[in-house]
Amino acid sequence: MRIDIITVLPGLLEGPFSHSILKRAEDKGLATVKVHDLRPYGIGKQKSVDDYAFGGGAGMVMMIEPIVRCLEALKKDRAYDEVIYMTPDGHTFDQPMANALSLKENLIILCGHYKGVDERVRQHLITREVSIGDFVLSGGELAAAVVADAVIRLLPGVLNDETSALTDSFQDGLLAPPVYTRPAVYNGWGVPEVLLSGHAANIESWRFDESVRRTKERRPDLIGGRFSSEKGGNTTEHNDS
Amino acid sequence: MRIDIITVLPGLLEGPFSHSILKRAEDKGLATVKVHDLRPYGIGKQKSVDDYAFGGGAGMVMMIEPIVRCLEALKKDRAYDEVIYMTPDGHTFDQPMANALSLKENLIILCGHYKGVDERVRQHLITREVSIGDFVLSGGELAAAVVADAVIRLLPGVLNDETSALTDSFQDGLLAPPVYTRPAVYNGWGVPEVLLSGHAANIESWRFDESVRRTKERRPDLIGGRFSSEKGGNTTEHNDS
Repeated sequence: MRIDIITVLPGLLEGPFSHSILKRAEDKGLATVKVHDLRPYGIGKQKSVDDYAFGGGAGMVMMIEPIVRCLEALKKDRAYDEVIYMTPDGHTFDQPMANALSLKENLIILCGHYKGVDERVRQHLITREVSIGDFVLSGGELAAAVVADAVIRLLPGVLNDETSALTDSFQDGLLAPPVYTRPAVYNGWGVPEVLLSGHAANIESWRFDESVRRTKERRPDLIGGRFSSEKGGNTTEHNDS
Repeated sequence: MRIDIITVLPGLLEGPFSHSILKRAEDKGLATVKVHDLRPYGIGKQKSVDDYAFGGGAGMVMMIEPIVRCLEALKKDRAYDEVIYMTPDGHTFDQPMANALSLKENLIILCGHYKGVDERVRQHLITREVSIGDFVLSGGELAAAVVADAVIRLLPGVLNDETSALTDSFQDGLLAPPVYTRPAVYNGWGVPEVLLSGHAANIESWRFDESVRRTKERRPDLIGGRFSSEKGGNTTEHNDS
């Protein structure tokens, strides 16, 4: 898999892609992330990439032309499955979207900065708009790094132990159960007995119960009708409402 | 404001805090972000910070003791308003939470890594658990950077033009309207006439309408009963359901 990230602040993305699993994925040849500075594609002597908003108001707007030039340069070398734009009003990124994107070959991620990109870029050049949540960042760079990290860690062989990703929160629609490690007692705080019992089936059962309990408590919206009969929907295969 | 981030992968956070508005906030003395490597607080000759999970299973767990040592060292120097743990099952980060955190003096953010921290850290040492969304990252580092960015950009004086942050998506419960910049026509794609009219009131009105339209289309959940009477709730001050 290959991810090309287009940004006006490439330096911001130096750390994330030279450490951790992203680095490991690159070293193993499983994923390539290239960060492209938009500036060389800018206009005029100044290599401008932004300008004032039509109609006035605070904040600069990223211009169409440098983005078109950069996209054209990238597309000359390969075909891309998606051109993603990171924006707070895009589709909210979640684990199913991460799973879907991890099956693609080549992705472009355009990072918005300042007040965002000219609307015509979104209308004509972008195939998918993605938000990582209901908050505003100073740019799309960290959001792009989040998407790249969530997607790349799912590629087979990136994590050392493949079962590790499958037992994560959200993969089965449940939050992960609590985890404990040594010492068994610290400052008078103990560990649930069952985890020290060595009884694999009981441990499995305890973990499942804890996952369900935690999900009901913190995120009942993830469970829906699955474990409750309040809405009478748990025996219905298809629900059109 | 000061944010102390505790991590097992400090290198991952080098880029985000030496660029963009975070750097500017530091240079202006408005915010300080310190990244602390957990490793020196580790146990034994190896300075271990993690161990196998009690009860077995894939993935390592971050131990209590190094975290306690690091927190104690930090708390010796100042009082902290919150000790935040980044975890996918925490409270979902959003703009109101960013606004609230931007009013704090000193924050600690603990980044989970591997399979997460020993549950007793969460029970006894953490004051607030935060998630940036329903997806799993290889660690809490990028999530911590996202929170720091969203919070610090709200501090007065960090953005060049203060009205810039106030017209962002979510600050008034609406998505931002489309933005356009030069050229007025590119590749046959034009700009809405009103934005070129110079008529400030009409532009303001168009932008508000576009914000509402876009929010209804993309995120009706943000509007609730405000602009619709479908649920008959828009004149109800308090809604207990």
